[in-house]
Amino acid sequence: MKFDIQATDSQSNARAGEITTDHGIIQTPIFMPVGTVGSVKAVHQRELENDIKAQIILGNTYHLYLRPGLNVLQKAGGLHKFNGWNHPILTDSGGYQVYSLANTRKIKEEGVTFRSHIDGSKHIFSPEYVMDIQRIIGADIIMAFDECTPYPCEYGYARKSLDMTHRWLRRCCDRFDSIEGLYGYQQTLFPIVQGSVYKDLRKQSAEVIASFEREGNAIGGLSVGEPAEMMYEMTELVCNILPKDKPRYLMGVGTPANILESIALGVDMFDCVMPTRNARHGLLFTTQGVINIKNEKWKDDFSPIDETLGGYVSTFHSKAYLRHLLISQEYLAAQIASVHNLTFYLWLVGQAREKIKEGTFTEWKNQMVKQVSQRL
Amino acid sequence: MKFDIQATDSQSNARAGEITTDHGIIQTPIFMPVGTVGSVKAVHQRELENDIKAQIILGNTYHLYLRPGLNVLQKAGGLHKFNGWNHPILTDSGGYQVYSLANTRKIKEEGVTFRSHIDGSKHIFSPEYVMDIQRIIGADIIMAFDECTPYPCEYGYARKSLDMTHRWLRRCCDRFDSIEGLYGYQQTLFPIVQGSVYKDLRKQSAEVIASFEREGNAIGGLSVGEPAEMMYEMTELVCNILPKDKPRYLMGVGTPANILESIALGVDMFDCVMPTRNARHGLLFTTQGVINIKNEKWKDDFSPIDETLGGYVSTFHSKAYLRHLLISQEYLAAQIASVHNLTFYLWLVGQAREKIKEGTFTEWKNQMVKQVSQRL
Repeated sequence: MKFDIQATDSQSNARAGEITTDHGIIQTPIFMPVGTVGSVKAVHQRELENDIKAQIILGNTYHLYLRPGLNVLQKAGGLHKFNGWNHPILTDSGGYQVYSLANTRKIKEEGVTFRSHIDGSKHIFSPEYVMDIQRIIGADIIMAFDECTPYPCEYGYARKSLDMTHRWLRRCCDRFDSIEGLYGYQQTLFPIVQGSVYKDLRKQSAEVIASFEREGNAIGGLSVGEPAEMMYEMTELVCNILPKDKPRYLMGVGTPANILESIALGVDMFDCVMPTRNARHGLLFTTQGVINIKNEKWKDDFSPIDETLGGYVSTFHSKAYLRHLLISQEYLAAQIASVHNLTFYLWLVGQAREKIKEGTFTEWKNQMVKQVSQRL
Repeated sequence: MKFDIQATDSQSNARAGEITTDHGIIQTPIFMPVGTVGSVKAVHQRELENDIKAQIILGNTYHLYLRPGLNVLQKAGGLHKFNGWNHPILTDSGGYQVYSLANTRKIKEEGVTFRSHIDGSKHIFSPEYVMDIQRIIGADIIMAFDECTPYPCEYGYARKSLDMTHRWLRRCCDRFDSIEGLYGYQQTLFPIVQGSVYKDLRKQSAEVIASFEREGNAIGGLSVGEPAEMMYEMTELVCNILPKDKPRYLMGVGTPANILESIALGVDMFDCVMPTRNARHGLLFTTQGVINIKNEKWKDDFSPIDETLGGYVSTFHSKAYLRHLLISQEYLAAQIASVHNLTFYLWLVGQAREKIKEGTFTEWKNQMVKQVSQRL
């Protein structure tokens, strides 16, 4: 993997770059649509590529491990072959999902024991095994197995958890570096900074993570319920320590405003279920602001969903039609709204990139944060 | 509306024709995907046009009347403008749905009183009102308001119902012919033959319906639970009475085999929820036979869904991937399976048309009925 920075903003830490992988180039800053079990919900692969113009998608190790399972994925020749997405893929480590199963999991030094949410069967994820699983899935970028602490989290717990996450990282790297990829292309491992909302822990973690000198670094444990200002404070602190010449990935973030503010802090990569999940509930992100398409006011508004955004789905269908589909609980509602919201997210990071290159990012960002956050 | 017959089969009553409407040409025999509330479930309009190559779709008057309602549809300029489908549309009369609400409807000479399945509100459909509704929806082909008798149905009830259906048809025609379309293009009204499974009633009904000399005729009240042989017998009897030079539409039919056999009897148009409904349950119609994609045997079958059929969806995705999506209850499962099944249905009637023109229909049909009915 190669990362080239092409432009930096003079008034912030924003940068425009290019990540080169064996499955193609990713232009940063980038948003990665979440394809939980090998499908971005309600979106065809062809739409991801042609309409949304996604450059990399995410897969969830926990979900893929349970279904379709490692046997099928390995026989298929990896996730790219299985789902037909021939551009880069990033997989999380499964940690986040496993910790969400609060009542059925046990965290020990060796690893985490948990029960499947599908059939209750018992499984163990260790740092080593999670590396093996992600080798089999075949993601281009794979994530270290960490503990994602909840919010709020007591200092003592956060500190002990962080130490374990760092010890687990050593085990992840040892395993990852000792085995080859299965399908003939390069994979790379990103470690994850933790430390809850404690500055000293975040600083310590960022330094440890930087010392591993991997090809990219991630910031985890944020956007888990803490105030946005706290998230920005932690992100800024960590970005100032993580090496400038490597991509920085802020996990699970976030709203359009969160993304723009974090780009200004030096983040290059984002993922979030928000555009697809909100789409299914009728919440649309548009270039002019946020729309709850279920509202009565859109009932006979035959204007396009978002004319400024462009693209087939957003200009072909009217607000009134999409509202009708949603109220009528038609499949097509989720389909149109998901393609629209993701198109908007990719447009937003693409615009940010252009503005960074043009040298007008900060001014544009300050105006755009207000514009895209207002309720229409 | 204009109907030209381009070829007839020498060994059966099959014919290949062309229906010309103000929204374009329909090549017959044709299958019409069902777009209940203005959307073919789980299918984008773009896919209907480019992948499935649908030429006409169906809308349900009952559903559209309740949601989005006549006010929105009229403001939109009709259903074509509302849902963006610029090819022909046919609407049923709402009768079938209304009669399905067995516990909350009352049939009288004047019309039918029923309660909405959504909010329990009370409504009345009369032959006149159903014409007005379909004028507002703006379908190219609209259906007469009839009573669709269930199966089994006592002779006495079927006879009395048939007489009322004929009286209602007079009222439908009077109303339809006295009012203009709202949107500047021609609409046409098809009457419906009823008579349950009684030969004398079917004969009488076909003669009455033919005497109205409308531009096309439909056969209703079949495929409601009677044996297939009985359905074919009634269809044959009716087709031999209905005028040759007008399109014949067999409502709500059916399986691929039903469609091929009915084409041989002289039917030109079909609609059925089967391809889309079955798709959502993982039942696929393919050129080689029927597949239950949930079966374990497809778990690691990485061959395309249907290579012979062609088309993006059917050749791009593997059986194993589609199975995984279905088992995981992903939206994309319904999307892929629905596009596939409809592509197959349109391919099947397109092939029938080609074979009729080539003069090889009957032989092909006899072989194909076996092939597409077998379980893989």
